[in-house]
Amino acid sequence: MRVVGGPSSTDLARKVSEVLQLQMVKTRTKRFPDGEFYFKFEDDIRGEDLLVVQSLYPPQDKHLMELFIILHTCRDLGAREIIAFIPYLAYSRQDKRYLKGECLSSAVVSEILQKLGVSTLYTVDVHNEDVLKKYKIPTFNLTASPAIAKYISGKGLNRPFVVAPDSEELAIKRAEAAARAIGAQYDYFVKRRNRHTGEIETFTKSMDVEGRDVIIIDDIISTGKTAANAASILKGMGARKVYVGVTHALMMGNAAEILQEAGVEEVIGTDSVSNRFAKVSVAPVLAEAVKNR
Amino acid sequence: MRVVGGPSSTDLARKVSEVLQLQMVKTRTKRFPDGEFYFKFEDDIRGEDLLVVQSLYPPQDKHLMELFIILHTCRDLGAREIIAFIPYLAYSRQDKRYLKGECLSSAVVSEILQKLGVSTLYTVDVHNEDVLKKYKIPTFNLTASPAIAKYISGKGLNRPFVVAPDSEELAIKRAEAAARAIGAQYDYFVKRRNRHTGEIETFTKSMDVEGRDVIIIDDIISTGKTAANAASILKGMGARKVYVGVTHALMMGNAAEILQEAGVEEVIGTDSVSNRFAKVSVAPVLAEAVKNR
Repeated sequence: MRVVGGPSSTDLARKVSEVLQLQMVKTRTKRFPDGEFYFKFEDDIRGEDLLVVQSLYPPQDKHLMELFIILHTCRDLGAREIIAFIPYLAYSRQDKRYLKGECLSSAVVSEILQKLGVSTLYTVDVHNEDVLKKYKIPTFNLTASPAIAKYISGKGLNRPFVVAPDSEELAIKRAEAAARAIGAQYDYFVKRRNRHTGEIETFTKSMDVEGRDVIIIDDIISTGKTAANAASILKGMGARKVYVGVTHALMMGNAAEILQEAGVEEVIGTDSVSNRFAKVSVAPVLAEAVKNR
Repeated sequence: MRVVGGPSSTDLARKVSEVLQLQMVKTRTKRFPDGEFYFKFEDDIRGEDLLVVQSLYPPQDKHLMELFIILHTCRDLGAREIIAFIPYLAYSRQDKRYLKGECLSSAVVSEILQKLGVSTLYTVDVHNEDVLKKYKIPTFNLTASPAIAKYISGKGLNRPFVVAPDSEELAIKRAEAAARAIGAQYDYFVKRRNRHTGEIETFTKSMDVEGRDVIIIDDIISTGKTAANAASILKGMGARKVYVGVTHALMMGNAAEILQEAGVEEVIGTDSVSNRFAKVSVAPVLAEAVKNR
């Protein structure tokens, strides 16, 4: 098996190849002046098993088309098996029709990935696991929250406490895994939509965070509002330092400022997203799953 | 049959519905804060024949994903037949491997469109007709060059003359059709790559354009360099006014300035691309083809 790094995840692909001790396939990519993507294998891949690494963080559509073109080329040139490692699986929100006539965008992505020959999919902290049930191929939802918690714990925290910003089953599971990894306690907030204002509000029982360092564990930071809200409440309850540990730090718009203003000490993301918050690698997380396959 | 307008071509879709006297399907689209696309049919489309209008000008990948999501929803909700009108068919350059290991991006697009249920494809002035041979469904390559020539001719030209900027078969055919539409003569330039500098150079026999108004007819203006080069040569041969009539006025970067500096009077594009150069509609071109089907 060899590793193919897509343009959104070149560094991560290199780490994956190092951790799994697999060779990289040499490739060339460019964008034409009109914006179209070009891809070329510099090595022969006929009969090879390939591990294609491409995360689908914003701009999602651009990263998706790159992935589709790469996968098509893999299959077209005779790769034997195509395993996809897509740490951030875009369009994982819309898995059922809440309103009549709605698109199922997650099903569009799953259909195209499978038609283009992906035989196994690895992803990390997918927003909604139901999305993976649409796939007819084996899918694995890995979690980066223990690795993130360990990284933050390495800073030397005062009686650390882990918090999930909402009460979704997956959110609580992630917080629990993070807490277990560093021998800490955890709890979770409850998010509700205010019927009058339409705003999302966060309710919570009181938590014993007075003077303690708190790690908010989340899957995605998009606008940053949910985590900022949680951080403000925690600070109000006397928390000392509040860290945000997030698998996919999309950090849209002024999310960084919003979090800072809410009293967040630091945002710790993974290399699922190539930006300045990528401090923890998901390569070891994948490696462990691939080895235990 | 009813018309579905994609986000890249809402105005064009409305024109198509008017010219063909078909109703529009009510839809709703938005982008989430993280950039993901959302689509919803407000009308029931079960059992309906749909004409989906979505041009794929830059940003191509974004417009492609919108189209994929719309097509998937059409099929998913039980549309009977899905006809796609894609005036600008992106990724129509790479239809064969010039170098070993290269992607065939046009085949990726054709495969996905067909798998998502498109039964007939209409496009306008495709860059390379071989791309359409990859389709197993009926495809129609329409031309907007006569309509563009008539529009420019309406400005009152002095002994008009039509020029193709290169000697590709399709380019000459388009210039011929444009010239015929306004009863003018035509000729074409020859583009060659300079073996020493690697630059594209334009060679030409002398043309009788002294004091005449010239229309350069092209399929795509991307950087504008080819048309600018042709315009400079024509001005050097004594042409009075030089117009650029182009089906897909992508006009990347400073193309407008480059053309103006080369002495181009005006760039006339179509609504295949929603920008300020869209002066001619391709809706009547489609209408004629659909009626004669």
